[in-house]
Amino acid sequence: MVLLSGGLDSATALALAREQGFRPHAITFDYGQRHRVELERAGAIADSLGVESHTVFPIDLRVFGGSALTADIDVPKPGEGAASHIGGSIPLTYVPARNLVFLSIAVALAEVRGSLDVFIGVNAVDYSGYPDCRPEFIDAYAKAAGLATRIGVESESDRPLKIHTPLAGLSKADIVRLAVRLGVPMELTVSCYDPTLACGPCNECEACVLRSRGFEQAGITDPAVQTWAQDKGRHDGAHQTG
Amino acid sequence: MVLLSGGLDSATALALAREQGFRPHAITFDYGQRHRVELERAGAIADSLGVESHTVFPIDLRVFGGSALTADIDVPKPGEGAASHIGGSIPLTYVPARNLVFLSIAVALAEVRGSLDVFIGVNAVDYSGYPDCRPEFIDAYAKAAGLATRIGVESESDRPLKIHTPLAGLSKADIVRLAVRLGVPMELTVSCYDPTLACGPCNECEACVLRSRGFEQAGITDPAVQTWAQDKGRHDGAHQTG
Repeated sequence: MVLLSGGLDSATALALAREQGFRPHAITFDYGQRHRVELERAGAIADSLGVESHTVFPIDLRVFGGSALTADIDVPKPGEGAASHIGGSIPLTYVPARNLVFLSIAVALAEVRGSLDVFIGVNAVDYSGYPDCRPEFIDAYAKAAGLATRIGVESESDRPLKIHTPLAGLSKADIVRLAVRLGVPMELTVSCYDPTLACGPCNECEACVLRSRGFEQAGITDPAVQTWAQDKGRHDGAHQTG
Repeated sequence: MVLLSGGLDSATALALAREQGFRPHAITFDYGQRHRVELERAGAIADSLGVESHTVFPIDLRVFGGSALTADIDVPKPGEGAASHIGGSIPLTYVPARNLVFLSIAVALAEVRGSLDVFIGVNAVDYSGYPDCRPEFIDAYAKAAGLATRIGVESESDRPLKIHTPLAGLSKADIVRLAVRLGVPMELTVSCYDPTLACGPCNECEACVLRSRGFEQAGITDPAVQTWAQDKGRHDGAHQTG
């Protein structure tokens, strides 16, 4: 069971699960995110890489408020300056305990699908102040989740549920290189916190800055730039003819 | 933050939180349960005991299937025979990792409300084969949840989030006695897995059997019996005049 957001990291985690011999299921959360294009791209990525099933799970985190990813708060756009804040205080784009909630639903669905393995594409760079991306959290959570499921209770199985975080130790540049090697459809992935289908990524938020720096350090041109340009071309063309 | 289902145990947990000096918030999950009357009663209990806020959080666990509490599977009705199965294999009414999912959302909402304390009314009797009611699960979960929230990261607070399970060691009879002492509006609580507003509790499912035995052992008449009879009288009257 792979948590698939539509971003580069989760797409790479999905490709890695396949390479390791798993027949992956994917789950994507429709949580009232302002970057709705993620949902569309997650579906396209699941189709492209191949999954046993893809579940889009609706959960309205907007009732919680408190995050620029869901509420009517402007996404911070410090541009390149953002990089200097990575690993510092908790950013405005933090959704309260989001990974705690998403992992729990993924574990429940994994149990239904008969899976003992949950993949999540968190990494050290993505952490950047999000407490529920920390390795200590993932380790403690895996232990709790194993105890919450039929597994470990029913006698026929004594292998506990495992939370895989294959990107945990990788830099963004490492992930870009890995994605290339695995044939991840990087052109479909979207990392921006505030993109639009018409205009593409903002190129200014923390996620955009991390992504472009990762591609730069890996010495690879981001193929998504081309996809966005084509989308924009079609959009503009549609406007001209419409 | 108190998880309030509309049942006797969670109502008692809420009353206990108040007695301990907390100003409680409550959260109730609208998860596609077949016993919808729970939601109505949860609201009435919250009003009766007094809460700072009551959030009804919609989450559709029916997409998971696999439980008689949500799917089109008959609730098992072994009558008194049910009691002999308590603590045995996982029952048909098990919703995959439900407490894992519910606790995670409650923790997220607690964080938003600025609360460091989450109350859940699980107890040894309620366990009856549900892996995510076990104390080992709650302990491991509390550790993970503490790491997933701002608390423990922000420097101004070093007290971790706590999951309170004040009923963990109590029998159903103990809980009934405690509920009486605390003035819990027991007449509003509903424990049955398959009640209807018109007909009341089924008196045959495991939850009904546990409840009636608890009242019997505590030497107290279940006031909900009277409430249901009144509801039924009103319902029948409405039918006759209608």
